[in-house]
Amino acid sequence: MSRTLDVAVIAGDGIGPEVIAEAVTVLRAAVPADTTVTTTEYPFGAGHFLATGTILGDDDLAALRRHDVILLGAVGGDPRDPRLAGGIIERGLLLRLRFAFDHYVNLRPTVILPGVESPLRDPGIVDFVVVREGTEGPYAGTGGSIRTGTPQEIASEVSVNTAYGVERVVRYAFTLAETRRKQLTLVHKTNVMSYAGSLWQRTVDAVAAEHPDVEVGYQHVDAATIHLVTNPSRFDVIVTDNLFGDIITDLAGAISGGIGLAASGNINPDGTYPSMFEPVHGSAPDIAGKNVADPTAAILSVALLLEQQGYPEAAASITAAVTADLAERGTTTRSTHEVGSAIAGRLTHH
Amino acid sequence: MSRTLDVAVIAGDGIGPEVIAEAVTVLRAAVPADTTVTTTEYPFGAGHFLATGTILGDDDLAALRRHDVILLGAVGGDPRDPRLAGGIIERGLLLRLRFAFDHYVNLRPTVILPGVESPLRDPGIVDFVVVREGTEGPYAGTGGSIRTGTPQEIASEVSVNTAYGVERVVRYAFTLAETRRKQLTLVHKTNVMSYAGSLWQRTVDAVAAEHPDVEVGYQHVDAATIHLVTNPSRFDVIVTDNLFGDIITDLAGAISGGIGLAASGNINPDGTYPSMFEPVHGSAPDIAGKNVADPTAAILSVALLLEQQGYPEAAASITAAVTADLAERGTTTRSTHEVGSAIAGRLTHH
Ligand SMILES: CC(C)[C@H](C(=O)O)[C@@H](O)C(=O)O
Ligand SMILES: CC(C)[C@H](C(=O)O)[C@@H](O)C(=O)O
Repeated sequence: MSRTLDVAVIAGDGIGPEVIAEAVTVLRAAVPADTTVTTTEYPFGAGHFLATGTILGDDDLAALRRHDVILLGAVGGDPRDPRLAGGIIERGLLLRLRFAFDHYVNLRPTVILPGVESPLRDPGIVDFVVVREGTEGPYAGTGGSIRTGTPQEIASEVSVNTAYGVERVVRYAFTLAETRRKQLTLVHKTNVMSYAGSLWQRTVDAVAAEHPDVEVGYQHVDAATIHLVTNPSRFDVIVTDNLFGDIITDLAGAISGGIGLAASGNINPDGTYPSMFEPVHGSAPDIAGKNVADPTAAILSVALLLEQQGYPEAAASITAAVTADLAERGTTTRSTHEVGSAIAGRLTHH
Repeated sequence: MSRTLDVAVIAGDGIGPEVIAEAVTVLRAAVPADTTVTTTEYPFGAGHFLATGTILGDDDLAALRRHDVILLGAVGGDPRDPRLAGGIIERGLLLRLRFAFDHYVNLRPTVILPGVESPLRDPGIVDFVVVREGTEGPYAGTGGSIRTGTPQEIASEVSVNTAYGVERVVRYAFTLAETRRKQLTLVHKTNVMSYAGSLWQRTVDAVAAEHPDVEVGYQHVDAATIHLVTNPSRFDVIVTDNLFGDIITDLAGAISGGIGLAASGNINPDGTYPSMFEPVHGSAPDIAGKNVADPTAAILSVALLLEQQGYPEAAASITAAVTADLAERGTTTRSTHEVGSAIAGRLTHH
């Protein structure tokens, strides 16, 4: 029986194309022999917008939707370019995709792999997953401003949280915890954001009743940042809202050896829409085109992609290859392409 | 010429009374001989609420307002007590005071003092101040929910940002930067919270024009958490909104040797209302009453209090005493009272 894995590739801006080239090589090397990978490249990003005036149209969404899955590098141009102000690319492309394709689970695993140096003196064994909600919260985009530009300006941002949206991501997190060390921590700020916080806390309490074997804890987001630097090994599965998840996963990336290793999945668990996998890092325009960016986060995102697409063994082989490569890497400086080739070269099906 | 310093003391819950006792001893020891310190104790906190049903009434506010300044320990009871759910004490007492007394500058200095071990392997020289806005943003408390408790529940939280509120705190931060290393970093999430972000960015740009010698930078809050663990020495003055400031100052406390050392001031720079000084840490009910809590953060909050009340030399003498004490402290375990006495004992005016 032969299978096809039909991947839409949005390499994006800056270092995106470099790291995605290596990730695609690894993807092809990792899949079983009976699977054909087809890739279709889409040009979206800041560069495309500046050249064409288009960020992502409805027809583009329709085209992307026909693929099994999306692999994204990084999007975003020069942060000082006034034509890109206000996160127009981030919101018009990245967030638009997450919302349009109902990527309600933003999955961000954090592991300190052997041989990787953490900025923490004594991190212990770190292996947790942040399940970040992806389609609600302060990312809903329902803010506004009046009297803009005057001394009477008022700008507001609205965090929207629904029972529907919170429950499904909380259920996902509990199911994930069942396959791991069975510890779940809700991270929120219930003492200040009391309406949203109450909804999250009540939902976790209700779903917890169906998972008596999962140990449930709670931390305010401010306290969570403390624990992430003083005792990160205490975490197994963290479930949290879109904004808190954004913040703590960058911190988690930093403590686990850098954002150059942090992978993520924007997942629609229902399978109604294609899921999207991307490194947590940005487009890093300052180092773009120099063949120095670390493609490991993009490659680990391919492992998440394969896992979600029903190739657990191929996913595990990538993780094993990355682990072996990192253990050997030491302090040698290698190019983007050298790292990609080294990892691809370790894969059984290469 | 003799002066009186009239301090309202809210020791609060948990370890609050223990650390405040030491802080008051240090306060009395630090002021010049011609100054009389009077303290008036107020019983507010979770314990008071559970005993009396009152959190903070209008008459209480009127009484507090008559003092020069407020010293607060920590408020908050057992987090699992359902009578205290939803941050009723935090919002009804701490946030109520910040809002009623227009504490629009929440000042949180971060220094790694000599002899203090950071959880970071190589923090470098860390000396920055976070100027957190204290009266707006997602703390405005203007959220709500409908269909509460049903599968159709929608809970919202509204972040309110005004030109008036942002400008005054940004001005304060620039003025502070002028007295320091002249570097100011705005931390926000302008690429997602684009209305509030635009107001903050435009305000910083406008005020920057009046301070051509201050170097101005910007970081998204997620990226800021990375820099706080990989390169915290890059920061001098950070200006940010209420929620982002809450999160990054706990992280800042953690990297600088623990929240047991982090002091803060809730300041009304106009002098219309009394300012309030408090350690960043909470009431820590688990270690309360054991004489083991570190009173250093409360003592350093007294230094901030004295600075703001026009006693810069007394403030500096406390900082010097704490620095000397920490350098000597090493790994010895001392009681709350021993630490307080050691620091008070070093003060000239003792
Ligand atoms: C680029 C930005 C909109 C995005 C986010 O805030 O979600 C990024 O920080 C991330 O974490 O994927
Ligand atoms: C207790 C809580 C309401 C408070 C806040 O969020 O401001 C605390 O975390 C702080 O930082 O002073």
